[in-house]
Amino acid sequence: MEHALSSSETLSLLSLTLASFATIANTFHGDGEPLIASLAFSGIAFSSSYSMIRWLGPTFMKAGLKGKDMSKSHKKEIPETMGAVCAVVYLLIITVFVPFPFYKDFVIATSGGGNRDVVLETYTVESGRFLHRFPHSKLASYLSAIMSLQSVCILGLGDDLFDIRWRHKFFIPGIASIPILIVYFVDFGVTQVVIPKPLQPYLGSLFELGPLYYIYMAAIAIFCPNSINILAGINGIEVSQSIVIALLLVLNDCLYLFAPYPHPATDSHLFSLYMLLPFLGVSFALWWHNWYPAKVFVGDTYCYFAGMVFAIVGILGHFSKTLLLLFIPQIFNFIYSAPQLFRIIACPRHRLPRFNARTGFLEASVTPWPQPPKSYIAISLNVLHRLHLVKVVTNEQGVIVESSNFTILNLWLVWFGPRREDRLATEILSMQVVCGLLGLFVRHRLALWIFEKDNLP
Amino acid sequence: MEHALSSSETLSLLSLTLASFATIANTFHGDGEPLIASLAFSGIAFSSSYSMIRWLGPTFMKAGLKGKDMSKSHKKEIPETMGAVCAVVYLLIITVFVPFPFYKDFVIATSGGGNRDVVLETYTVESGRFLHRFPHSKLASYLSAIMSLQSVCILGLGDDLFDIRWRHKFFIPGIASIPILIVYFVDFGVTQVVIPKPLQPYLGSLFELGPLYYIYMAAIAIFCPNSINILAGINGIEVSQSIVIALLLVLNDCLYLFAPYPHPATDSHLFSLYMLLPFLGVSFALWWHNWYPAKVFVGDTYCYFAGMVFAIVGILGHFSKTLLLLFIPQIFNFIYSAPQLFRIIACPRHRLPRFNARTGFLEASVTPWPQPPKSYIAISLNVLHRLHLVKVVTNEQGVIVESSNFTILNLWLVWFGPRREDRLATEILSMQVVCGLLGLFVRHRLALWIFEKDNLP
Repeated sequence: MEHALSSSETLSLLSLTLASFATIANTFHGDGEPLIASLAFSGIAFSSSYSMIRWLGPTFMKAGLKGKDMSKSHKKEIPETMGAVCAVVYLLIITVFVPFPFYKDFVIATSGGGNRDVVLETYTVESGRFLHRFPHSKLASYLSAIMSLQSVCILGLGDDLFDIRWRHKFFIPGIASIPILIVYFVDFGVTQVVIPKPLQPYLGSLFELGPLYYIYMAAIAIFCPNSINILAGINGIEVSQSIVIALLLVLNDCLYLFAPYPHPATDSHLFSLYMLLPFLGVSFALWWHNWYPAKVFVGDTYCYFAGMVFAIVGILGHFSKTLLLLFIPQIFNFIYSAPQLFRIIACPRHRLPRFNARTGFLEASVTPWPQPPKSYIAISLNVLHRLHLVKVVTNEQGVIVESSNFTILNLWLVWFGPRREDRLATEILSMQVVCGLLGLFVRHRLALWIFEKDNLP
Repeated sequence: MEHALSSSETLSLLSLTLASFATIANTFHGDGEPLIASLAFSGIAFSSSYSMIRWLGPTFMKAGLKGKDMSKSHKKEIPETMGAVCAVVYLLIITVFVPFPFYKDFVIATSGGGNRDVVLETYTVESGRFLHRFPHSKLASYLSAIMSLQSVCILGLGDDLFDIRWRHKFFIPGIASIPILIVYFVDFGVTQVVIPKPLQPYLGSLFELGPLYYIYMAAIAIFCPNSINILAGINGIEVSQSIVIALLLVLNDCLYLFAPYPHPATDSHLFSLYMLLPFLGVSFALWWHNWYPAKVFVGDTYCYFAGMVFAIVGILGHFSKTLLLLFIPQIFNFIYSAPQLFRIIACPRHRLPRFNARTGFLEASVTPWPQPPKSYIAISLNVLHRLHLVKVVTNEQGVIVESSNFTILNLWLVWFGPRREDRLATEILSMQVVCGLLGLFVRHRLALWIFEKDNLP
């Protein structure tokens, strides 16, 4: 890879950055429109991650953060863990952005036509300036979100550096989610679930989950990062699936934007947009370098970080169930992977599809069975084979000698045959888009049949 | 180093951990005394960092995080960046601790003798449970503090991995401090400084610094981490100086604890104690392994992290000027180092004292002058030499050929002659304790002569 930016790249990135800065400066003249500012910050996020990914490539390789692409004929080493650059750029940008949604509150309190005197009279210097006027709970959402993100980034870096064992790292996003759970507890505390109409005669219209609801939210925080981390193994798939989920979430947020303003859900969805737009900025920059043929790898840091962004907007934006509708391929992949993840059947170190150097195509990778599997496993594998959910190879005695690995990527290759890496990625992503749009449709249209009302304006 | 814990170590750490957990469980019976819980959490912080430093040593070395101790006859490699372990343990512990200071608020709102019904009646499910009752500004202090700490940890890790250039990393703690500055702006917004009595006729009793005050606070956040990072180079000095500062701050906090409760400063100093006690826990564990002869190195992560803890309690606790009184040796070292830091005179890669393998003692290290220095530099060096602030060696023509490096450690060796590494560290630390106690004395006793009143109860 050429590490210096070409002159046309420099020119484009520079113009984007300047335009973004000008836009941000301009928001100060009006009401400090945070949505415009957020878009501009996303521009800066894109151009700075784009250039830093290029510039830092050699530094990362020198520090030992490099890997070989196993699905290429010419296996040269490329930088690893480049998602960490995106995560750090994102964290810096979002930290600088935090004051913008509060611009109005600042202006009212410090200069708004005579208000200043009133404020200074009412509250003394010792007790603070506008303690009860400021939307603290909103600020706490932002701070706790950034905190949780930083925690998973530190975890991700640790994982990329030291290869933490699966059973150790699995629950750490749960710990990282404590700040957002506290904020949820303090600010919303809603732990009831709405019961679908057919069940209402038995359970009432609301069902109190209580502490279980917090366990449910922690489970979401654990699931999202880990599920993205295991739907991996071919160029670009980690970033692309995250971009698809983010775009679908943005679409869902936009549905709420045109409501007459103090609609209760508007603020949640604005919060979600402010978190997702810069995320898309850094992700597109990474995608550019990670798509087939990859010039950099993303590393676990990116997967954890992306998953946590989604968990945070889902939990603090009160749409964790909608979020799960957008994770259908990941949920399927997770359940499908479970037999290998929980070591019911053998799990090799890497389960990515096998590269056939002769054809240049990817094929489903397999786990060999040096000893014949136990009878109940053999029966299950044969049933799954009949259902076309796994490919089993038997020897002349009918004993299983190998079975395809349990990931959605391998299953796709079993179903549709070998294909090139980028085609596989594109097809999986198209499937994901279709599932996601269907999920949103179910959420907003079909929900009316089983719930009493949709919360769309 | 033996990486497994000895059986007596295991037994002591296990008892400490169990006792701590029992204490924490016990606090739930009473008022959830957060100070007792904080002490117990510090015990857990100590025992978990102690064991993890030992267990993770080989992992760090395998990942390339290792270094040679240049001040020993037998230069064997030991693990580097072990401060990162402490920082991560600290961040986890403090995140879990956050709900404790709010225990009373939770109890009042969710079960306090019939209060629950009142709350649920007043606020509907949609607007949240006890929005206006909860001390949001206090929670925001904790969240922003943790956020700033996580930012410097990520910076520190980046520095340890990639050796970021000095001019790039210098200002990053300033960016990391944005969250605490926002919280300061929102919750306190006090930007006046009290003017000493002799100057009051000219400037009034309070002087409004305005935005300058925020620059001043950002400068503190930049200064504290960097100043600890440059007072380094011999075994144990980074951790020990941080422990001394933390203990002096705890002493200062305790002076406020015995005030009748709703004294305005009590909450700030409780916040400071909650942040500092677990910090002392992880630091003592690191000190045990880093004191002469060092079995692990601390890395830049620890220095940044420690400095940021102090900056945060100083800024959010409103005693940033008191804090600076405890940084006198670091301030002196920073000013004294300035000619080399800003490249007015040559600065070698390492300025740590030189180890004399024959005597086993440390001597002041020197910068050679292959070309004679420019005349104004030569004059300055000669003046400093006369003032005993630097040691200059001249050749027979009176031309300067070498000068001692500008660090407080080398200056001490110039003044008092070569000595063993641990004796140098102990002497510097004793000097620091004396300066710090003097600083606190000045703060609480002499301040009355020049200010109108001390804020001690």
